[in-house]
Amino acid sequence: MTETKRDRQFRPVPVPSVVLGGLFGARQDAVCDTTAETLLDRCVEAGMLKAIDVDQPSPGVVIPYHSMSPTVPATEHKAMVSTQMFWDSDLGKSIETVAYSLYRKPNPQLEARVDAIVDLYGRLQREDGYLNSWYLRVVPGREWTNLRDTHELYCAGHLIEGAVAYYQATGKRKLMDVMCRYVDHIIGKFGHGPDQIAGYCGHEEVELALVKLARATGEQKYMDLSKYFIDERGTEPHYFDIEARRDGRDPQNFVFGSYHYNQSHQPVREQTKVVGHAVRAMYLYSGMADIATEYNDDTLTAALETLWDDLVTKQMYVTGGIGPSAANEGFTDYYDLPNESAYAETCASVGLVFWANRMLGRGPNRRFADIMEIALYNGSLSGLSLDGKTFFYENPLESAGKHHRWIWHRCPCCPPNIARLVASIGSYMYAVADDEIAVHLYGESSVKAEVAGTRIELSQATRYPWHGAVRLTLKVEKPTRFAVSLRLPGWAKGARLSIDGGAVDLAAVTVDGYARIEHEWTGGEVIDLELPLIPRALWADPRVRQDTGRFALMRGPLVYCTEAVDNGEGLNALTVTGDPARAGESEVAALGGAVALDIEATRDLSAGFDGSLYREAPPATEPVKARFVPYHLWDNRAPGEMLVWMRGGSKKSGA
Amino acid sequence: MTETKRDRQFRPVPVPSVVLGGLFGARQDAVCDTTAETLLDRCVEAGMLKAIDVDQPSPGVVIPYHSMSPTVPATEHKAMVSTQMFWDSDLGKSIETVAYSLYRKPNPQLEARVDAIVDLYGRLQREDGYLNSWYLRVVPGREWTNLRDTHELYCAGHLIEGAVAYYQATGKRKLMDVMCRYVDHIIGKFGHGPDQIAGYCGHEEVELALVKLARATGEQKYMDLSKYFIDERGTEPHYFDIEARRDGRDPQNFVFGSYHYNQSHQPVREQTKVVGHAVRAMYLYSGMADIATEYNDDTLTAALETLWDDLVTKQMYVTGGIGPSAANEGFTDYYDLPNESAYAETCASVGLVFWANRMLGRGPNRRFADIMEIALYNGSLSGLSLDGKTFFYENPLESAGKHHRWIWHRCPCCPPNIARLVASIGSYMYAVADDEIAVHLYGESSVKAEVAGTRIELSQATRYPWHGAVRLTLKVEKPTRFAVSLRLPGWAKGARLSIDGGAVDLAAVTVDGYARIEHEWTGGEVIDLELPLIPRALWADPRVRQDTGRFALMRGPLVYCTEAVDNGEGLNALTVTGDPARAGESEVAALGGAVALDIEATRDLSAGFDGSLYREAPPATEPVKARFVPYHLWDNRAPGEMLVWMRGGSKKSGA
Repeated sequence: MTETKRDRQFRPVPVPSVVLGGLFGARQDAVCDTTAETLLDRCVEAGMLKAIDVDQPSPGVVIPYHSMSPTVPATEHKAMVSTQMFWDSDLGKSIETVAYSLYRKPNPQLEARVDAIVDLYGRLQREDGYLNSWYLRVVPGREWTNLRDTHELYCAGHLIEGAVAYYQATGKRKLMDVMCRYVDHIIGKFGHGPDQIAGYCGHEEVELALVKLARATGEQKYMDLSKYFIDERGTEPHYFDIEARRDGRDPQNFVFGSYHYNQSHQPVREQTKVVGHAVRAMYLYSGMADIATEYNDDTLTAALETLWDDLVTKQMYVTGGIGPSAANEGFTDYYDLPNESAYAETCASVGLVFWANRMLGRGPNRRFADIMEIALYNGSLSGLSLDGKTFFYENPLESAGKHHRWIWHRCPCCPPNIARLVASIGSYMYAVADDEIAVHLYGESSVKAEVAGTRIELSQATRYPWHGAVRLTLKVEKPTRFAVSLRLPGWAKGARLSIDGGAVDLAAVTVDGYARIEHEWTGGEVIDLELPLIPRALWADPRVRQDTGRFALMRGPLVYCTEAVDNGEGLNALTVTGDPARAGESEVAALGGAVALDIEATRDLSAGFDGSLYREAPPATEPVKARFVPYHLWDNRAPGEMLVWMRGGSKKSGA
Repeated sequence: MTETKRDRQFRPVPVPSVVLGGLFGARQDAVCDTTAETLLDRCVEAGMLKAIDVDQPSPGVVIPYHSMSPTVPATEHKAMVSTQMFWDSDLGKSIETVAYSLYRKPNPQLEARVDAIVDLYGRLQREDGYLNSWYLRVVPGREWTNLRDTHELYCAGHLIEGAVAYYQATGKRKLMDVMCRYVDHIIGKFGHGPDQIAGYCGHEEVELALVKLARATGEQKYMDLSKYFIDERGTEPHYFDIEARRDGRDPQNFVFGSYHYNQSHQPVREQTKVVGHAVRAMYLYSGMADIATEYNDDTLTAALETLWDDLVTKQMYVTGGIGPSAANEGFTDYYDLPNESAYAETCASVGLVFWANRMLGRGPNRRFADIMEIALYNGSLSGLSLDGKTFFYENPLESAGKHHRWIWHRCPCCPPNIARLVASIGSYMYAVADDEIAVHLYGESSVKAEVAGTRIELSQATRYPWHGAVRLTLKVEKPTRFAVSLRLPGWAKGARLSIDGGAVDLAAVTVDGYARIEHEWTGGEVIDLELPLIPRALWADPRVRQDTGRFALMRGPLVYCTEAVDNGEGLNALTVTGDPARAGESEVAALGGAVALDIEATRDLSAGFDGSLYREAPPATEPVKARFVPYHLWDNRAPGEMLVWMRGGSKKSGA
C-alpha cells in the first residue's frame, strides 16, 4: 500500500475534453435536444428576460409557475406568485447548461439566444461593475444590505459559472469579462478595511464559482476572494448580526432560527456536524474542498473529512439523497431518514456530487468517489426524466402513487442543476495531477488530457452500468511514465484487472481503493477491468427507524426500486423471499435498455379479512415475482406506487 | 337469535344517573379537581370573557396561545395570534364540562364562575334573541353572511349543549332560556319562506345539540329544526354557492376545494363515503343518528350504516383515531393510515364515540358499541393526561420522541371535548328503552333508571378494563319484566355469563352481539360476566401500507404500545418473538395501576455496522423483553419514543 500523497492536486478535466457514449451519452443528447432549450423557454416565460432588460419596466415580484404533472392539462395548472430574488442564478445555470450542450451538439439558434441574454446583462451592469438584477431592477439602492437572506453573491456565483462555461464552449469572453468586472467590484467591497464588508453570502455558491473563475483566468485574486469568504464564515462578531442591526432588523428575527441553517454558526474549520439547508451545505463544502486543494490546506481537509463522515454515516439516504425535511430544505436529526416524505432535493444530491468530486482534489479515494457515484446515479439522476422534459424536485424513496415529475417549479433551481451536471459529467469522470490520471467513474467515453507533459487519450469501451466489463485503451503522444488510477468500487467484490492480458495483483497496487498503475506507457495498452455486478441487498443501521425490517436492492452503483407498473399496486404487501444475488436479469427497452431484476417474493393478501380492517391473524400470502428497476428511472412509464426499502431479503444475520 | 327491533328507541341515561368508580372514576376526579378549572382559566387568559363582556372594548382578533410542552418554561412559549370566531364553542364546552363535574363534586366557586359567564351572555344577547360573540362584538352586522366558514351555528350548538348540561346539573335555567330564545330566533330565520335562509352550518354540531335541547325541554320544534338542517344539507341549488354570490364572493374560491370538506357535496342520505374534515363528519353523523332514532327514519339509518362501514373498514386507525391528514384535518384515501404523521385529532375520536353511541339509539349492537369502546379508550382518552392537566391534539401511533402533551393550543377544541366526554361517560355506558336497559360499556359504576315503569338500580363491581370479571347486581322498585342487554365484545372469545350462579347459554340469548336477558326481575339478582382479557395481536389489511409486516397488541379494548421509558430508544429495532397470548402481566403504579405486558423480543443492533450507515448483512440481534403499556397512557412518564405497530408477533398465516 502506497501512502496517499495529499499534495498531488488533482483537478477535473475540462468538460470538452471528454466525449461520452452509453447511458450518459444518451442523457446528454436529451439535454442537448430538449432540456437546454426548455430551460431558456421557462426562464423567458417566467419573465426573467424582462427582469434584466433595462429597456423594459421592472416586472416586480410576480412569477407564474407550474408545479403540476405534465399529465394535467395546462389550463388546470395553478398560477402562483412569488418573490424571486435568485433569477440571475437560474439564468446562470441555464447558460452553463447550454454551454456544455454546445460542445456535444453545436446549435447556432441556442447560442444566439444566450448571446442575447449576455448582451442584456452587459447593458444591465452598473458603471462600477455591480450586477444583480434583483437589486438593480426591483429594489434599487438596497444592495449589500442583506447578505443573509437575498442570495446576492449566490447569484453572482451562478453567473460566474455560466460565464466560464460559455467562454470555454464558445470562446466568447463577453460574459466572463462582465463577471470579472463585477468580481473586481466585489473585491473592493469586501474585506476588513474601512467601509468594507466583512461578510459572506447566506447561500454559499460564489466560493466554488470563484475557484472556477480563477482556474479559467489564472487570476489568483479570485481564488483569494473565495478563500476570504470561507475563512470569514461563522467568525465573531457575527456578520449577520452586525448587518441586521445596521439595517434596522432584529438579528433574533430570523425565520430559520439559527445560523446553523446557513452553516455560519461556527468558523468552518471548527464545524463537525452537517447541518441546515442541504444545498447550502454542499456548496460550502465544495468551495472549501477546492480551496483545500488549491492551498494544500490540511486544516480545511481535516474539517471536511469530519463533516463527510458525519453526513455519510448518519444522515444520507441509500440513494445519496440528503436533507430529509421540507421545513428547512435540509438536515434534521441523525438517522432520521423518512422515505415517503423525504425531501432529498435534486439540487442537494447534485451538490453532494460536487463536494465528493472536489474531495478527490487531494488524491483519488473511493471513500469519496463511491458516494459521488451513488449520489450521481440515484439521488441526482432521478431528478430528470429519460426524455429530458420533466423534473423531480423532491426525491422520496417511497411513493403512494401521487409523486410525479413536473414541467417546472416555483423555485426552478433543480432543472438546470441536474441538466448542467449531466451535460458536464465527463469532467467528473476523469481528473489529472502532474503525473497521474484518475478514472473516477466508468462509462463509455474517451478523454484527452495532458499528463506528465504528454498529451494522452484514454478510452473506455463498456456498457457500464448495465455490464461490468470495462476495456480501457490508452494513446500517448510519446512513451511517458505516469500513473493511471482506476477506482475499484467498494461494492465490486472480486474485481479483476489485467493489462494487455496479464493479470494485475490488485492487492499490490491498490491505494485508497484505486488501482494505481504507474508505468512507462507507450500507447496501445489495453486495460481490462471486470467489475462484478452481482445484485446485493443492503441493510440500514437499525437506528434508521424507517428502514428496520427492510432492505434495499443494489446492483453496482444503482439503487433499485419496485414500481406499480411492474408489480401492481400494494408494494408494501410484497416480501422478498428469493436471493437477490440470483435475481433474473433482463433489459427493459422502455427504460433505455436498463437491466431489470426479478426475484421471488410473496404478496400479503387482503382476501380473508372479509371487510374488516384488522383481524387476529396475519394476512395469507401468495408467491409472486417482484420486478425491480433502477430507482433513477422510476416514474418514466405509467404513474403509480414506488418503493425502495422492501421487506424480506436474506434471513441470515450478520455479526 | 331474536330480530333487531329498530323502533325501540334507546336513549342514553342522563349524566347524573350514573356514579362511577374505577378507571373512569379516577379520571372524573382529575377533571373535577383540575381540568374543569383549567378550562375556565385558559378561556379567561385567552380573553374570551372580554370578548363577551359588553362593558369592555372588543378584544379584536388577537389570542395568545401556548402549544408547547409543560416541560418548557413558560417564558419560552411563543405567543401567536389568530382569528378565533369559535370562542363561544370553547366556552360552551367548558361550561358543559364544569356542569358534569358538579354532579360528582359540588364546587360553589366553579359554579359561581360559570354563573358570571352566563350573566355576560345574558347581557350580550341581542333584543331579537341573536347571540354570537364574534358577530356581535368583532364584525357586527355581518351575521348569517357566511355559514360556510365561520362556525356561527356551530357556536350556538356548543352553547346549547353547555346550557342543557348546566341546567340539568344545577337546575339553573338562565342559560337554557337564553339559548331557547336564540334558537327561536334561528327558527324564524331559517326555512324556505321569503327572507329566510335555506341553509345550514359549514361546521356541523348544532344538529346534535338541538336534539339534546329538544329532549331536555320537550319542545318538538327544536327537534324539527335539527331535522331541517340535516335534510337541507347538500341539496341543490347549493346553499354555499348562493351565499357566496350574495356576499360578493366567488363560490369557487373555497380554500378546501370542494364541499366534501364539510360533507355538503351531496344530500346526506345519498352519501356513501366518509370524507372531509373528520370532526365535522362525526358531528353530522351523530346528529343524523339522533334524528334517525327520534323519527324512526330508516333512510337515515341506511345511509349511516353505509358510512359506518366505509369508516371502520377502510379509514380508521386501530386506536379508533380517524382523519390522518393535518392538511384538511380529515380523511384522505382509503387505507392511508400513516402512523408517525397521523393527525387523528382527539376531537375526531371523541366525535366517533358520539356517533357510535347514537347508532345504538335503534337498538344495542356491538358493531357500533365495540368501536365506541375502542375510540373511547384509545384515540380519545389519549388526549388527556392522567393528572388532567395536559392534552394531545394529534394522536399519532408512532413518535420519534418529540410529540408531547401541551398545556393549551391555538385552537383549544380538544381539551374541553375530551374533558366533557370523560365527565359524562356514564351516559355512554347505559341506555334505556321502554322495556330494556342496555349495558354498552363495563366499569365500576351504578346507574339509576326507569325501565318498564319501574325505578331500578344496576351496579357493576369490576376492575375492568384491567380484569375481566364483571359482577352486576340489580335492584328494582317492584318485580318487573324487562330486558337487560349486556354487550359481549367481539374480542371476548369464550365469554361466560351466569345469573345467580346459573350458567346462561349465550348462543341462545345473543342478539347483535348483546346477551339479552328478558326476565321478571325481583331484585337482588347477581349477574356474573367473565370477559377473557387474553392479549392478542391484530394485523391490518395489507392495503394499509404503513402497517405491513407489523402487528398491534391488544388486551380487551385497549391498544398497547411500547415506550422508550420502558424499552430504551430505538423501538423500531425491536421484533416481538414471543406469543402475545402468553405475555407477562404486571400492574404499573405510575400509570394508575394499569396492566403492562412483557413479551420476548429481539433487538437489532447497530454494533457491527462499524460506522457505516448501510451494509450487506442484516443487523445482528440480541434477545430482550419488550414492555407494552396501554396506548392511552403514553407520555405520562418520561418523554421519548412511542410505537404501536411492532414488527413480529406470530408467524402463523391466516386463511
